[in-house]
Amino acid sequence: MRSAEDLFLDALLPQLGVMPDDVVIPPGDDCAALRWGPDRLLLLTVDQVIGDRHFRRSGPGAATPEQAGRKLLARNLSDIAAMGGKPLFALLAVALGPPEDISWLERFHNGLLELARAWHVALIGGDLARAPQDMVSSLTLLGEAPANRVLHRTGARPGDQFFATGEFGQSYPTGHHLTFTPRLREGAWLAEQRLAHAMMDVSDGLALDAARLCRAGNVALRLDLNAIPVRTPQTTLAQALGDGEDYELIFAVLPGEAARLKAEWPFPETRLTRLGEFQPPTATGLRLADAAGNPLPERLLKGFDHLA
Amino acid sequence: MRSAEDLFLDALLPQLGVMPDDVVIPPGDDCAALRWGPDRLLLLTVDQVIGDRHFRRSGPGAATPEQAGRKLLARNLSDIAAMGGKPLFALLAVALGPPEDISWLERFHNGLLELARAWHVALIGGDLARAPQDMVSSLTLLGEAPANRVLHRTGARPGDQFFATGEFGQSYPTGHHLTFTPRLREGAWLAEQRLAHAMMDVSDGLALDAARLCRAGNVALRLDLNAIPVRTPQTTLAQALGDGEDYELIFAVLPGEAARLKAEWPFPETRLTRLGEFQPPTATGLRLADAAGNPLPERLLKGFDHLA
Repeated sequence: MRSAEDLFLDALLPQLGVMPDDVVIPPGDDCAALRWGPDRLLLLTVDQVIGDRHFRRSGPGAATPEQAGRKLLARNLSDIAAMGGKPLFALLAVALGPPEDISWLERFHNGLLELARAWHVALIGGDLARAPQDMVSSLTLLGEAPANRVLHRTGARPGDQFFATGEFGQSYPTGHHLTFTPRLREGAWLAEQRLAHAMMDVSDGLALDAARLCRAGNVALRLDLNAIPVRTPQTTLAQALGDGEDYELIFAVLPGEAARLKAEWPFPETRLTRLGEFQPPTATGLRLADAAGNPLPERLLKGFDHLA
Repeated sequence: MRSAEDLFLDALLPQLGVMPDDVVIPPGDDCAALRWGPDRLLLLTVDQVIGDRHFRRSGPGAATPEQAGRKLLARNLSDIAAMGGKPLFALLAVALGPPEDISWLERFHNGLLELARAWHVALIGGDLARAPQDMVSSLTLLGEAPANRVLHRTGARPGDQFFATGEFGQSYPTGHHLTFTPRLREGAWLAEQRLAHAMMDVSDGLALDAARLCRAGNVALRLDLNAIPVRTPQTTLAQALGDGEDYELIFAVLPGEAARLKAEWPFPETRLTRLGEFQPPTATGLRLADAAGNPLPERLLKGFDHLA
């Protein structure tokens, strides 16, 4: 249950060498973090949106340029949300293909800037170029978080309850991947209330990302498959586990805090679901099991792989 | 003498709205800058390297993957150099085309990381994806500069002497664009010595970038065309003015400081040349003239345009 991207990063990360003292959270989490004043961190993340990979450029189901620009920022906002942070600044790189002209770019910017204004993100830099064929854009997002409340991927412990926001599966056919609201409010509240103590966002599929959360904490997880909220009545469990692009938060909650979490959850429009319980690591290294402790059937595990 | 990219940015920048107080240098310079402690700035810049645009992917003259990775970081280092800053951290986004495999990517990273180590830059984040056809990479580089010595594009005044490092023209055919040394030492020294008071790097051609430096300071410039150092004996003046990808520094020096600059220049391996003198703005808005004050011949002005 490891993606080619994970394996590549496993090989790359040790090559990066010793990190400077200013780097409080090194590469491998949703964001890296630098010291930024005595009790504040500067969060940093980068994500791409590629034509005909993350959105359709033309034909039926094509995204508007505004939607493509919005998605690029929204993906990055989701990474800041996953740390319990607040977004601040963005730098944008765009490579336009031959079909995309300046008016396409203006609309792309408009979609991005509308979401930026909603979250008070300032675009402070950019680069623009032509690509021979594709449309490729990347955005580096900076945010802040209090140093003593930032949420890492590490920290889940056996006995912790496994929670998730929202619904899963079929993000592409439903258009969710173009319209989702990044869980910034929810993430910041969970950090502020100290209710989550390990968190990440789900971009590559619930199963794959839950396994990453397990790996970061060296724990296993029993997933209550019947409890997983699906996006539509037609969405299958395999789709909910594997489709990706959900941009929901998954997190670990102390067993004694689960009741308070449910009682005080202040976001009626955002579903909150307990999806299982973390376990001690297994001798085999298996991370995910069903509620009875049996390995998940292979047919459910088709994790989205960015290098596939 | 304005590029399509300049005109696009002119339209975009006002849309970005009021910048937060933390943004000390807003978009439009070589780097943006954020306040980072009482007397330190955090510099930020982003640049792309695109296959078959910034390097050849295959065939005669193809760059090695190591050279492509090196170039991506080197371009960004040149932007930090242009502010008199010191590079610190990088975030990398890579979209691999179908021909590029994981071993290509490893070599790309190796080229990038070798240069990163040489300048003590830590790679703190990244994103990896597949593009349908192209190879597109972008890097966001963070650096630092003392708040009271950072060098902007603005600030050139009539009477200032116009200086440049290095040689110009034919960067592509000579391979200079793959092997150049970013002028970090020179930029930091000029800032430290307070010898330059407006500076930028030349990436889009000497004429175009000199015109941008003029525009930022609302001045004009008389260029001593005979003084422009060309990269090879075969390099024409038009190539030196227009080819781009030189990654040299151009800067304004107080008339009374030019002699000290030349006397104390501590980089024997880096040519330093006086290329002209800044003038009051002209009634017509013309920025560049020859040493006699005549407009530069059109045949010499074929500025490299990233949107062409």
